Amino acid sequence: MRPLILITNDDGFAARGLRALDEVAMDIADVIVMAPETNASGQSHSITTSRPLRVREIKKTAGLEVYACDGTPVDCGKLATEYFCPRRPDLVLSGINHGSNSSINVLYSGTMGAVIEATALGLDAIGFSLLNHSPEAEFAPSLPYVKHIVDYVLANGLPPNVSLNVNIPRLEAEEIKGVRVCHEAKARWLDSFEKRIDPQGRPYWWLTGKFECDDAPQSSDEWALANGYVSVVPIHPDFTHYEAIGQLKALQL
Amino acid sequence: MRPLILITNDDGFAARGLRALDEVAMDIADVIVMAPETNASGQSHSITTSRPLRVREIKKTAGLEVYACDGTPVDCGKLATEYFCPRRPDLVLSGINHGSNSSINVLYSGTMGAVIEATALGLDAIGFSLLNHSPEAEFAPSLPYVKHIVDYVLANGLPPNVSLNVNIPRLEAEEIKGVRVCHEAKARWLDSFEKRIDPQGRPYWWLTGKFECDDAPQSSDEWALANGYVSVVPIHPDFTHYEAIGQLKALQL
Repeated sequence: MRPLILITNDDGFAARGLRALDEVAMDIADVIVMAPETNASGQSHSITTSRPLRVREIKKTAGLEVYACDGTPVDCGKLATEYFCPRRPDLVLSGINHGSNSSINVLYSGTMGAVIEATALGLDAIGFSLLNHSPEAEFAPSLPYVKHIVDYVLANGLPPNVSLNVNIPRLEAEEIKGVRVCHEAKARWLDSFEKRIDPQGRPYWWLTGKFECDDAPQSSDEWALANGYVSVVPIHPDFTHYEAIGQLKALQL
Repeated sequence: MRPLILITNDDGFAARGLRALDEVAMDIADVIVMAPETNASGQSHSITTSRPLRVREIKKTAGLEVYACDGTPVDCGKLATEYFCPRRPDLVLSGINHGSNSSINVLYSGTMGAVIEATALGLDAIGFSLLNHSPEAEFAPSLPYVKHIVDYVLANGLPPNVSLNVNIPRLEAEEIKGVRVCHEAKARWLDSFEKRIDPQGRPYWWLTGKFECDDAPQSSDEWALANGYVSVVPIHPDFTHYEAIGQLKALQL
């Protein structure tokens, strides 16, 4: 039996990046896509509890089913796993995201939210992102690397409780130097809002921001990407800072 | 000068849990509250990019300013830090959440999203949650523990890049046994959706779910809470699984 791959994203079911992922997956697996109806970037790990979800069938052929759902990326992945996959998926893929999810961006990313949720459900999962925000981004140079990493994970599995955050530099195929396994660089978004005045004279604030990375050693994803490599960061859904447990024992009562 | 404490939550500016936190904070600090207009539970680390944010002044007195914002908890914390705090806050508090944010729940929680964002911005931050979902929950038994932990952090600071996820059992004051510093228990939400049929005969899916925890050793938050303790989990915004980096080196090209 061919493997079953579930695909989602946060740019919406019609995004070019998702279709690029389909292409790679359909060569080797049966594919089910369930992705948001519209752009859901920045939705992180959010879930929808205040209203029910609707699902629209976009395409249903042998080997490929595509559904659009009006929920978040995490909703899409969970709902597809429980109700739309004929069996437990062998692998969950998310992306290819239009824009970086390296470093601190993993926190905000709906693409990576879906990946982390899949990990929590015990599934192998990989998120892919290309460092190009354009809806017309060119995904062809990414595909051999996507295929390499998908093949590796299907053949070897991932360590328990681990998923992969893969970012791909915006380069021509021959300029990409290879693949590096890294940790997240330490960074943050500063100067996050622009204050403006509306035509009625009332203030509003619009999210913007400046990415500031002050620590990108050679072992980090930001270094890899800046130097022409695809970055692969193993991530997990446990936020505990284990070293700090001992340092905080004085808090105990 | 009195310390400055910034408070937010995900239950909305009018929630009783937030007012309980105000009470503790106002005894020791100047307080600025910026919290969502309405319930924003389950919004995790999401941010609002597709529309601007509006802010409504609820109250402005010496020592206490309260604002409601139509953004997510992360939006609220960031916007208040940049535009509404007269100086950098000494501490960011989030909560007291109506309902548990222990274990895997930290992933979905808007309350904890705001805490993790504050950490990324280099601020000390603590999230508080009571294991009682009711809007009428009784917060009085929580307050001495909130005060103990806030006092500790104001006096000692937190280790770099670490914030605290504090959960409080639903018990009478005399039944709470103390405070334990823990790690997250491993758990997940299963059977997440209920499929229903609307009056027009069309299907919809509503999020529900069963909390399943299969590993709650004595060192974990679930054990502490089930045994009458307040749990304190140090968390951090780096999702890297460092041990897995070595295990995945075969992926490199």
